[in-house]
Amino acid sequence: MANLFLVLLHHPMVNRRGEIVTTAITSLDIHDIARSARTFGVSGVYVAHPVTALRDFAARVRDHWFDGPGRQFDSRRREALELVHLVADLDQAIAEIERLTGRRPVLVYTSARASDGLSYDELRHRLGSDATPVLLMFGTGFGMAPAIRERADLVLNAIEGVDDYNHLSVRAAVAIVLDRLRER
Amino acid sequence: MANLFLVLLHHPMVNRRGEIVTTAITSLDIHDIARSARTFGVSGVYVAHPVTALRDFAARVRDHWFDGPGRQFDSRRREALELVHLVADLDQAIAEIERLTGRRPVLVYTSARASDGLSYDELRHRLGSDATPVLLMFGTGFGMAPAIRERADLVLNAIEGVDDYNHLSVRAAVAIVLDRLRER
Repeated sequence: MANLFLVLLHHPMVNRRGEIVTTAITSLDIHDIARSARTFGVSGVYVAHPVTALRDFAARVRDHWFDGPGRQFDSRRREALELVHLVADLDQAIAEIERLTGRRPVLVYTSARASDGLSYDELRHRLGSDATPVLLMFGTGFGMAPAIRERADLVLNAIEGVDDYNHLSVRAAVAIVLDRLRER
Repeated sequence: MANLFLVLLHHPMVNRRGEIVTTAITSLDIHDIARSARTFGVSGVYVAHPVTALRDFAARVRDHWFDGPGRQFDSRRREALELVHLVADLDQAIAEIERLTGRRPVLVYTSARASDGLSYDELRHRLGSDATPVLLMFGTGFGMAPAIRERADLVLNAIEGVDDYNHLSVRAAVAIVLDRLRER
Protein backbone atom coordinates (compact mmCIF):
# COMPACT_ATOMS: atom_id res chain seq x y z
CA MET A 1 0.00 0.00 0.00
CA ALA A 2 2.82 2.34 -0.99
CA ASN A 3 0.28 4.88 -2.26
CA LEU A 4 -1.71 4.91 0.97
CA PHE A 5 -1.34 7.66 3.58
CA LEU A 6 -3.32 8.43 6.75
CA VAL A 7 -4.07 11.66 8.51
CA LEU A 8 -5.37 11.83 12.09
CA LEU A 9 -7.23 15.11 12.49
CA HIS A 10 -7.94 17.05 15.70
CA HIS A 11 -9.55 20.20 14.25
CA PRO A 12 -12.25 21.00 13.22
CA MET A 13 -13.98 18.13 15.04
CA VAL A 14 -17.42 17.99 16.62
CA ASN A 15 -18.26 17.13 20.21
CA ARG A 16 -21.32 15.11 21.27
CA ARG A 17 -23.53 18.20 20.89
CA GLY A 18 -22.28 18.86 17.35
CA GLU A 19 -20.27 21.92 18.35
CA ILE A 20 -16.96 22.57 16.60
CA VAL A 21 -14.02 21.73 18.86
CA THR A 22 -10.29 21.00 18.80
CA THR A 23 -9.39 17.71 20.47
CA ALA A 24 -6.13 16.90 22.25
CA ILE A 25 -3.46 14.65 20.80
CA THR A 26 -3.38 11.29 22.60
CA SER A 27 0.03 9.66 22.73
CA LEU A 28 -1.41 6.16 22.45
CA ASP A 29 -3.16 7.11 19.20
CA ILE A 30 0.24 7.88 17.72
CA HIS A 31 1.77 4.60 18.87
CA ASP A 32 -1.13 2.36 17.93
CA ILE A 33 -1.80 3.96 14.57
CA ALA A 34 1.90 3.99 13.67
CA ARG A 35 2.24 0.29 14.55
CA SER A 36 -0.84 -0.64 12.51
CA ALA A 37 0.38 1.52 9.60
CA ARG A 38 3.81 -0.10 9.67
CA THR A 39 2.28 -3.59 9.84
CA PHE A 40 0.17 -3.01 6.74
CA GLY A 41 2.70 -1.03 4.71
CA VAL A 42 1.19 2.47 4.80
CA SER A 43 3.65 5.09 3.52
CA GLY A 44 3.01 7.88 5.99
CA VAL A 45 0.90 8.90 8.99
CA TYR A 46 0.20 12.61 9.42
CA VAL A 47 -0.90 13.79 12.85
CA ALA A 48 -2.53 17.18 12.37
CA HIS A 49 -3.00 19.68 15.19
CA PRO A 50 -3.23 23.48 15.04
CA VAL A 51 -1.53 24.05 18.41
CA THR A 52 2.26 24.16 18.24
CA ALA A 53 2.70 23.01 21.85
CA LEU A 54 0.73 19.82 21.19
CA ARG A 55 2.66 19.11 18.02
CA ASP A 56 5.86 19.53 20.04
CA PHE A 57 4.47 17.09 22.64
CA ALA A 58 3.71 14.56 19.94
CA ALA A 59 7.16 14.98 18.43
CA ARG A 60 8.72 14.24 21.83
CA VAL A 61 6.59 11.09 22.18
CA ARG A 62 7.80 9.97 18.78
CA ASP A 63 11.44 10.92 19.19
CA HIS A 64 11.77 9.21 22.59
CA TRP A 65 11.95 5.94 20.65
CA PHE A 66 14.53 7.15 18.17
CA ASP A 67 17.54 6.95 20.43
CA GLY A 68 18.57 6.49 24.04
CA PRO A 69 16.55 4.37 26.47
CA GLY A 70 13.45 4.09 24.30
CA ARG A 71 15.40 2.62 21.43
CA GLN A 72 17.23 0.22 23.70
CA PHE A 73 13.96 -0.95 25.25
CA ASP A 74 12.19 -1.61 21.96
CA SER A 75 14.16 -1.01 18.80
CA ARG A 76 11.26 -1.90 16.50
CA ARG A 77 8.95 0.77 17.85
CA ARG A 78 11.14 3.21 15.92
CA GLU A 79 10.29 1.57 12.61
CA ALA A 80 6.65 2.39 13.20
CA LEU A 81 7.12 5.89 14.58
CA GLU A 82 9.35 6.88 11.67
CA LEU A 83 6.16 6.95 9.62
CA VAL A 84 4.69 9.74 11.78
CA HIS A 85 4.85 13.38 10.69
CA LEU A 86 3.43 16.31 12.65
CA VAL A 87 1.54 18.90 10.61
CA ALA A 88 -0.69 21.86 11.44
CA ASP A 89 -3.67 20.84 9.34
CA LEU A 90 -5.05 18.82 6.45
CA ASP A 91 -3.63 21.21 3.86
CA GLN A 92 -0.13 20.74 5.16
CA ALA A 93 -0.53 16.95 5.00
CA ILE A 94 -1.75 17.22 1.40
CA ALA A 95 1.18 19.48 0.51
CA GLU A 96 3.68 17.05 2.05
CA ILE A 97 2.24 14.10 0.13
CA GLU A 98 2.27 16.11 -3.08
CA ARG A 99 5.90 17.03 -2.46
CA LEU A 100 6.82 13.37 -1.81
CA THR A 101 4.88 11.72 -4.61
CA GLY A 102 4.49 14.49 -7.17
CA ARG A 103 0.72 14.02 -7.12
CA ARG A 104 -2.14 15.47 -5.16
CA PRO A 105 -3.73 12.74 -2.99
CA VAL A 106 -7.34 11.64 -3.31
CA LEU A 107 -9.04 12.53 0.00
CA VAL A 108 -11.08 9.69 1.52
CA TYR A 109 -13.44 10.45 4.39
CA THR A 110 -14.06 7.76 7.00
CA SER A 111 -16.92 7.81 9.47
CA ALA A 112 -18.88 5.55 11.79
CA ARG A 113 -22.07 6.22 9.85
CA ALA A 114 -21.44 6.25 6.09
CA SER A 115 -23.18 3.46 4.17
CA ASP A 116 -23.55 4.85 0.62
CA GLY A 117 -19.85 5.23 -0.07
CA LEU A 118 -17.03 3.07 -1.35
CA SER A 119 -16.78 -0.52 -0.21
CA TYR A 120 -13.48 -1.86 1.12
CA ASP A 121 -13.13 -4.08 -1.94
CA GLU A 122 -13.54 -1.06 -4.21
CA LEU A 123 -10.93 0.98 -2.38
CA ARG A 124 -8.50 -1.96 -2.21
CA HIS A 125 -8.87 -2.47 -5.93
CA ARG A 126 -8.25 1.20 -6.57
CA LEU A 127 -5.10 1.19 -4.41
CA GLY A 128 -3.78 -1.78 -6.36
CA SER A 129 -4.56 -0.48 -9.83
CA ASP A 130 -4.01 3.29 -9.66
CA ALA A 131 -0.78 4.85 -8.38
CA THR A 132 -2.46 8.09 -7.33
CA PRO A 133 -1.82 8.59 -3.61
CA VAL A 134 -4.83 8.12 -1.34
CA LEU A 135 -5.11 9.98 1.96
CA LEU A 136 -7.46 8.31 4.45
CA MET A 137 -8.81 10.88 6.91
CA PHE A 138 -9.61 9.81 10.48
CA GLY A 139 -11.29 12.04 13.05
CA THR A 140 -11.15 12.23 16.83
CA GLY A 141 -13.68 13.36 19.44
CA PHE A 142 -17.15 12.70 18.03
CA GLY A 143 -15.93 12.93 14.45
CA MET A 144 -14.91 15.35 11.72
CA ALA A 145 -16.78 18.62 11.21
CA PRO A 146 -18.82 18.99 8.00
CA ALA A 147 -16.16 21.32 6.58
CA ILE A 148 -13.78 18.35 6.35
CA ARG A 149 -16.29 15.99 4.83
CA GLU A 150 -17.08 18.53 2.14
CA ARG A 151 -13.46 18.44 1.02
CA ALA A 152 -13.43 14.67 0.57
CA ASP A 153 -13.28 13.17 -2.92
CA LEU A 154 -14.58 9.80 -1.70
CA VAL A 155 -16.35 8.38 1.35
CA LEU A 156 -15.47 4.96 2.77
CA ASN A 157 -18.31 2.93 4.26
CA ALA A 158 -18.46 2.55 8.02
CA ILE A 159 -17.34 -0.63 9.75
CA GLU A 160 -20.55 -2.46 10.47
CA GLY A 161 -21.00 -4.38 13.72
CA VAL A 162 -23.80 -6.67 14.81
CA ASP A 163 -26.33 -3.87 15.38
CA ASP A 164 -26.37 -0.07 15.44
CA TYR A 165 -23.54 0.25 17.98
CA ASN A 166 -20.81 2.21 16.16
CA HIS A 167 -18.41 3.42 18.80
CA LEU A 168 -15.08 1.85 17.93
CA SER A 169 -12.04 3.78 19.11
CA VAL A 170 -10.13 5.50 16.32
CA ARG A 171 -7.23 3.15 17.10
CA ALA A 172 -9.45 0.11 16.52
CA ALA A 173 -11.05 1.64 13.43
CA VAL A 174 -7.68 2.37 11.81
CA ALA A 175 -6.53 -1.19 12.49
CA ILE A 176 -9.65 -2.74 10.94
CA VAL A 177 -9.68 -0.42 7.91
CA LEU A 178 -6.03 -1.18 7.11
CA ASP A 179 -6.58 -4.92 7.54
CA ARG A 180 -9.53 -4.78 5.16
CA LEU A 181 -7.52 -2.82 2.58
CA ARG A 182 -4.43 -5.03 2.61
CA GLU A 183 -3.59 -6.87 -0.58
CA ARG A 184 -5.02 -10.41 -0.73
CA MET B 1 -20.89 -14.29 18.30
CA ALA B 2 -22.90 -15.08 21.42
CA ASN B 3 -20.57 -17.98 22.21
CA LEU B 4 -17.41 -15.85 21.95
CA PHE B 5 -15.60 -14.52 25.03
CA LEU B 6 -12.26 -12.74 25.42
CA VAL B 7 -9.73 -12.68 28.21
CA LEU B 8 -6.96 -10.09 28.48
CA LEU B 9 -4.15 -11.61 30.53
CA HIS B 10 -1.44 -9.81 32.52
CA HIS B 11 0.26 -12.78 34.20
CA PRO B 12 2.27 -14.87 33.45
CA MET B 13 3.57 -12.79 30.51
CA VAL B 14 7.08 -12.51 29.12
CA ASN B 15 9.15 -9.37 28.71
CA ARG B 16 11.46 -8.69 25.76
CA ARG B 17 14.13 -10.92 27.32
CA GLY B 18 11.71 -13.81 27.76
CA GLU B 19 11.55 -13.43 31.54
CA ILE B 20 8.22 -14.10 33.30
CA VAL B 21 6.56 -10.85 34.37
CA THR B 22 3.23 -9.39 35.47
CA THR B 23 2.18 -6.39 33.37
CA ALA B 24 0.05 -3.47 34.55
CA ILE B 25 -3.58 -2.99 33.53
CA THR B 26 -3.92 -0.13 31.02
CA SER B 27 -7.21 1.74 31.22
CA LEU B 28 -7.31 2.31 27.47
CA ASP B 29 -7.05 -1.44 26.85
CA ILE B 30 -10.28 -1.87 28.78
CA HIS B 31 -12.10 0.87 26.88
CA ASP B 32 -10.89 -0.07 23.41
CA ILE B 33 -11.36 -3.80 23.82
CA ALA B 34 -14.82 -3.35 25.36
CA ARG B 35 -15.91 -1.08 22.50
CA SER B 36 -14.64 -3.52 19.88
CA ALA B 37 -16.26 -6.44 21.71
CA ARG B 38 -19.59 -4.62 21.92
CA THR B 39 -19.41 -3.67 18.24
CA PHE B 40 -18.93 -7.26 17.13
CA GLY B 41 -21.28 -8.93 19.60
CA VAL B 42 -18.84 -10.67 21.95
CA SER B 43 -20.58 -11.94 25.10
CA GLY B 44 -17.98 -11.08 27.71
CA VAL B 45 -14.53 -9.58 28.21
CA TYR B 46 -12.52 -10.84 31.19
CA VAL B 47 -9.64 -8.68 32.38
CA ALA B 48 -7.40 -10.93 34.46
CA HIS B 49 -4.87 -9.58 36.96
CA PRO B 50 -3.49 -11.23 40.10
CA VAL B 51 -3.14 -7.96 42.06
CA THR B 52 -6.30 -6.89 43.88
CA ALA B 53 -5.38 -3.18 43.80
CA LEU B 54 -5.11 -3.21 40.01
CA ARG B 55 -8.41 -5.03 39.64
CA ASP B 56 -9.96 -2.38 41.88
CA PHE B 57 -8.44 0.33 39.66
CA ALA B 58 -9.90 -1.30 36.58
CA ALA B 59 -13.29 -1.62 38.24
CA ARG B 60 -13.24 2.13 38.99
CA VAL B 61 -12.36 2.91 35.35
CA ARG B 62 -15.31 0.80 34.27
CA ASP B 63 -17.79 2.03 36.86
CA HIS B 64 -17.04 5.71 36.19
CA TRP B 65 -19.17 5.33 33.06
CA PHE B 66 -22.05 3.60 34.79
CA ASP B 67 -23.53 6.64 36.48
CA GLY B 68 -22.83 10.28 37.27
CA PRO B 69 -20.74 12.51 34.99
CA GLY B 70 -19.31 9.69 32.88
CA ARG B 71 -22.72 8.42 31.94
CA GLN B 72 -23.96 11.92 31.16
CA PHE B 73 -20.95 12.59 28.95
CA ASP B 74 -21.25 9.41 26.92
CA SER B 75 -24.13 7.10 27.72
CA ARG B 76 -23.14 4.48 25.15
CA ARG B 77 -19.74 3.86 26.67
CA ARG B 78 -21.62 2.00 29.41
CA GLU B 79 -23.00 -0.52 26.94
CA ALA B 80 -19.46 -1.56 26.08
CA LEU B 81 -18.05 -1.53 29.60
CA GLU B 82 -20.90 -3.66 30.91
CA LEU B 83 -19.21 -6.53 29.08
CA VAL B 84 -16.08 -6.21 31.24
CA HIS B 85 -15.50 -8.48 34.24
CA LEU B 86 -12.45 -8.36 36.50
CA VAL B 87 -10.98 -11.73 37.48
CA ALA B 88 -7.79 -12.88 39.17
CA ASP B 89 -6.63 -15.30 36.49
CA LEU B 90 -7.51 -17.49 33.53
CA ASP B 91 -9.07 -20.17 35.73
CA GLN B 92 -11.51 -17.70 37.21
CA ALA B 93 -12.52 -16.54 33.70
CA ILE B 94 -13.09 -20.15 32.67
CA ALA B 95 -15.17 -20.81 35.79
CA GLU B 96 -17.31 -17.72 35.14
CA ILE B 97 -18.00 -18.76 31.55
CA GLU B 98 -18.81 -22.29 32.66
CA ARG B 99 -21.22 -20.88 35.26
CA LEU B 100 -22.89 -18.64 32.65
CA THR B 101 -23.13 -21.09 29.77
CA GLY B 102 -23.06 -24.47 31.48
CA ARG B 103 -20.11 -25.50 29.32
CA ARG B 104 -16.38 -25.30 29.66
CA PRO B 105 -14.98 -22.93 26.99
CA VAL B 106 -12.53 -23.97 24.32
CA LEU B 107 -9.30 -22.02 24.96
CA VAL B 108 -7.86 -20.31 21.88
CA TYR B 109 -4.35 -18.91 22.02
CA THR B 110 -3.52 -15.85 19.92
CA SER B 111 -0.01 -14.67 19.14
CA ALA B 112 1.90 -12.47 16.76
CA ARG B 113 3.86 -15.46 15.47
CA ALA B 114 1.62 -18.52 15.05
CA SER B 115 1.23 -19.70 11.45
CA ASP B 116 0.39 -23.40 11.76
CA GLY B 117 -2.87 -22.93 13.66
CA LEU B 118 -6.50 -22.26 12.84
CA SER B 119 -7.36 -19.83 10.08
CA TYR B 120 -9.92 -17.09 10.70
CA ASP B 121 -12.35 -18.79 8.33
CA GLU B 122 -12.05 -22.02 10.31
CA LEU B 123 -12.68 -20.35 13.65
CA ARG B 124 -15.57 -18.28 12.27
CA HIS B 125 -17.17 -21.45 10.90
CA ARG B 126 -16.74 -23.17 14.25
CA LEU B 127 -18.34 -20.25 16.11
CA GLY B 128 -21.31 -20.37 13.76
CA SER B 129 -21.83 -24.13 13.83
CA ASP B 130 -20.95 -25.21 17.37
CA ALA B 131 -22.51 -23.64 20.46
CA THR B 132 -19.55 -24.51 22.71
CA PRO B 133 -18.21 -21.25 24.17
CA VAL B 134 -14.84 -20.11 22.83
CA LEU B 135 -12.47 -18.06 24.98
CA LEU B 136 -9.95 -16.05 22.95
CA MET B 137 -6.85 -15.35 25.02
CA PHE B 138 -4.89 -12.14 24.45
CA GLY B 139 -1.60 -11.31 26.11
CA THR B 140 0.11 -8.07 27.09
CA GLY B 141 3.76 -7.08 27.42
CA PHE B 142 5.74 -9.22 24.96
CA GLY B 143 3.17 -12.00 25.00
CA MET B 144 1.88 -14.92 27.04
CA ALA B 145 4.27 -17.22 28.88
CA PRO B 146 4.58 -20.82 27.62
CA ALA B 147 2.50 -22.04 30.58
CA ILE B 148 -0.53 -20.31 29.07
CA ARG B 149 0.05 -21.58 25.56
CA GLU B 150 0.31 -25.13 26.87
CA ARG B 151 -3.23 -24.85 28.24
CA ALA B 152 -4.73 -23.80 24.91
CA ASP B 153 -6.95 -26.20 22.97
CA LEU B 154 -6.44 -24.31 19.71
CA VAL B 155 -4.06 -21.72 18.28
CA LEU B 156 -5.25 -18.91 16.02
CA ASN B 157 -2.92 -17.81 13.26
CA ALA B 158 -1.18 -14.45 13.61
CA ILE B 159 -2.36 -11.38 11.73
CA GLU B 160 0.02 -11.12 8.81
CA GLY B 161 1.25 -7.74 7.61
CA VAL B 162 3.29 -6.87 4.54
CA ASP B 163 6.57 -8.27 5.90
CA ASP B 164 7.92 -9.67 9.16
CA TYR B 165 6.86 -6.67 11.25
CA ASN B 166 4.43 -8.06 13.85
CA HIS B 167 4.07 -5.43 16.52
CA LEU B 168 0.41 -4.49 16.54
CA SER B 169 -0.91 -3.20 19.85
CA VAL B 170 -3.20 -5.63 21.66
CA ARG B 171 -6.00 -3.09 21.12
CA ALA B 172 -5.46 -3.20 17.35
CA ALA B 173 -5.05 -6.98 17.32
CA VAL B 174 -8.33 -7.53 19.18
CA ALA B 175 -10.15 -5.21 16.77
CA ILE B 176 -8.81 -7.00 13.69
CA VAL B 177 -9.42 -10.51 15.07
CA LEU B 178 -13.04 -9.70 15.93
CA ASP B 179 -13.63 -8.10 12.55
CA ARG B 180 -12.26 -11.19 10.82
CA LEU B 181 -14.45 -13.48 12.91
CA ARG B 182 -17.72 -11.61 12.45
CA GLU B 183 -20.49 -13.38 10.59
CA ARG B 184 -20.52 -12.66 6.85
